[in-house]
Amino acid sequence: MRGAVLYGRGDVRFEDRPEPRIEEPTDAIISLPVTCICGSDLWPYRGIAPVAGPTPMGHEYCGIVEEVGRGVTSLKRGQFVIGSFFACDNTCPNCQHGYQTSCQQKTPVIGAQAPRLRVPLADGTLVATREMPDGDHLASMLALSDVMGTGWFAAESANVKPGTTVVVVGDGAVGLLGVLSAKEMGGERIIAMSRHESRQKLAREFGATDIVTERGAEGVERIKELTNGVGADSVLECVGTSESMMQAIQSTRPGGSVGYVGVPHGVSLDGQQLFFSHVHLHGGPAPVRQYLRQLIYLVFAGRIKPGKVFDLVLPLDRVAEGYRAMDERRAIKTLLRP
Amino acid sequence: MRGAVLYGRGDVRFEDRPEPRIEEPTDAIISLPVTCICGSDLWPYRGIAPVAGPTPMGHEYCGIVEEVGRGVTSLKRGQFVIGSFFACDNTCPNCQHGYQTSCQQKTPVIGAQAPRLRVPLADGTLVATREMPDGDHLASMLALSDVMGTGWFAAESANVKPGTTVVVVGDGAVGLLGVLSAKEMGGERIIAMSRHESRQKLAREFGATDIVTERGAEGVERIKELTNGVGADSVLECVGTSESMMQAIQSTRPGGSVGYVGVPHGVSLDGQQLFFSHVHLHGGPAPVRQYLRQLIYLVFAGRIKPGKVFDLVLPLDRVAEGYRAMDERRAIKTLLRP
Repeated sequence: MRGAVLYGRGDVRFEDRPEPRIEEPTDAIISLPVTCICGSDLWPYRGIAPVAGPTPMGHEYCGIVEEVGRGVTSLKRGQFVIGSFFACDNTCPNCQHGYQTSCQQKTPVIGAQAPRLRVPLADGTLVATREMPDGDHLASMLALSDVMGTGWFAAESANVKPGTTVVVVGDGAVGLLGVLSAKEMGGERIIAMSRHESRQKLAREFGATDIVTERGAEGVERIKELTNGVGADSVLECVGTSESMMQAIQSTRPGGSVGYVGVPHGVSLDGQQLFFSHVHLHGGPAPVRQYLRQLIYLVFAGRIKPGKVFDLVLPLDRVAEGYRAMDERRAIKTLLRP
Repeated sequence: MRGAVLYGRGDVRFEDRPEPRIEEPTDAIISLPVTCICGSDLWPYRGIAPVAGPTPMGHEYCGIVEEVGRGVTSLKRGQFVIGSFFACDNTCPNCQHGYQTSCQQKTPVIGAQAPRLRVPLADGTLVATREMPDGDHLASMLALSDVMGTGWFAAESANVKPGTTVVVVGDGAVGLLGVLSAKEMGGERIIAMSRHESRQKLAREFGATDIVTERGAEGVERIKELTNGVGADSVLECVGTSESMMQAIQSTRPGGSVGYVGVPHGVSLDGQQLFFSHVHLHGGPAPVRQYLRQLIYLVFAGRIKPGKVFDLVLPLDRVAEGYRAMDERRAIKTLLRP
C-alpha cells in the first residue's frame, strides 16, 4: 500500500509502505475510509520536533475492522471502530481512573495516513459503533479520534460547568472544538481568542459569544475588561507555547481552572507566579478513549458536528499539499481520502 | 508596647514599638493572649527572603477585641476572634469564590509577635467564636490562623476524599497538620515523608499510617513501591523547593492531585514534564478565612487538636530564642506568651 512518510522538514512523501499485518495476538487491522492531518504533525514537519529518519505519519483514525489477532475477543470483522493516538489496555489502574493516555501498556499508533492501519491492544483501544456512520457522520467520527476528544478533555480539565465564563486560547481545530465542548457542557459566555476571520466564524458557529483578537498582555487585559476585572472561571489552553500558557493562566480568576492540551514546547512555569495566581492547572495528552462512547452518542444524536473543522478535502496521494495548506494556515484541518 | 522586630539575618530583637491604634474606620485592635513564630518567618530570618529595614514580625493571631473603628458592624469589644495573615473584605468576587487570600482589597497583617495588634478590614477578616476558648483550646485556636488552615487547604487542593491514598511532603507544622487534615477528610492510607523522629511520632498521632524517610528520587521510588507502582491519589507539598515540588509531582498517580502550599523559592516547572505527569496542580496562599468557622467547630468539638504542633513555649521577651530553636530544627513551632 502507499502512505505518507515524513523525511524531514517540509518533506512529506506519498510512497510504498509495507502492508500492515497482525504482529501480536491483541492487534487488529482496520481499513480507513478517511484519514487526516493533525496540528501536532506540523511540529516535526516544521522542524521544531526532531525526526529520526523516515517516519510514517498519521495518528487519527476510524474505519472498518478487517482482521483481528487470536487474542482479540470484543471485536469482529466488518465493525466500524474508532480509536485514539495511544493504544491502551483499558484495564490497568491508570486506565480505570480514566487516564488511558497514561496506560501502563500504552503504545503510540502511527501510520494512519494510509489506506490500512495496525492497531495494537485492540480490545482496549477500539470502540465499535452500533451503526455504520453515513457520509455526513464520517468526518465527525474521524474528529473524535483526537481533536474532538482533546478539546473535550481541555474543557473538562478547565472545569467548564453550566453558567460559567470560558476563554479558549488557540483557534486551531482543538481550540475550536474546545469551544464546541464548552458550549455542550453549558458554558454561558465563551470567549474565543482568534485573529483569523474564517476561524472566528466557525468559533461563533460552535458557540463562542465573544471574540478577542488581542494576544499576550493585551489579550489578558481585554479578558479582564470582559469579566469585570476578575478573570474567567475556565480557560482552555490549546497551543503549547510559553506565551499561550501565560495568557491562559493570567486570564483565569483566582480559584478558576486552566485546562491545557497544547503539547508544551519550551514552556517553563515560574513557581511563585503560579502560586499567587491561585489557579487550578490540569492537562496532558487527552485520554480520548474515556470519552469515545459519549462523543459517538452525541454525533449520532446530531448534537455535535465536530467534522466541520475539516475545511480542505484531498485525495490521500495529495497529502503533501494538505500539509502545506495547514502549515501556511490556509486550512484549519485537512481530510484525506485513501 | 514591646514586640519582635527583625533587623536582618538571624537578628530578631524584642523592643519598643508604637501602640497599635485605629487608623481606618474598618480596623479593630485585639489583644493577644498567645502568639507564635511561623515556618515562613524563617525565610527572612535565614536571609533567603530579603528584609528591607527593621520589620515587625508575626502574622498568626487570635485574641480579644479591644476596640473597633466606627465602620465595623459585626464585632464588639470582648469577643474572642481569629483572623488570617491577609486581611480581606470577604465580599469581593474572589472572596465569594472562597479565595480570600486573593481578595481585591487584601492587606497583609503584620506585627502579631506582640501583646496587641491592629487588624484591617475587621468585619471581613475576623471570625468570632461563640464561647471563650479555655487554656486547652487556646493553642489550637492560634494554629487555625495559619498552619492548620494551610494544611487543610493543601489537603483540599490535593482532593483528599474518603478511601484515598495520601502522601505528605514536608514535616514542618503545615505538613503535620496536612496529615491531620487528610485524616479528618477520610484519607485511608496517609504516608508522611519525614526523617525526624519527634515529627514522625506526631505524624502518627495525627493519623499517618506509613513513614517514608527517603527523599528525592529514592523517596519517589519508595512511594511507588507502596502504591503498586501507580502513585498516590493525593499529594500535599508543604515545603516550597524545586526538589519537594518534583518529589510531589512524581509521587502522584496520573489523574491524581498535588496540593502545594509551600511558598515556592526558586521553583521552575518544566511544561512537558508536568504535561505528561497528568496531575492536577492547585495551591497558593491558603484562603484560611474560608475554613475558620468549620475549623473552630472541629476544635471545640474535640475532633482536632492542631495546637499539638507547639512543642516549645516561651515568654514573648524570649522570642529570639524561639527563632533559634526553629531555625536549628530543635522545635517544630514556638508558642509565645506576651
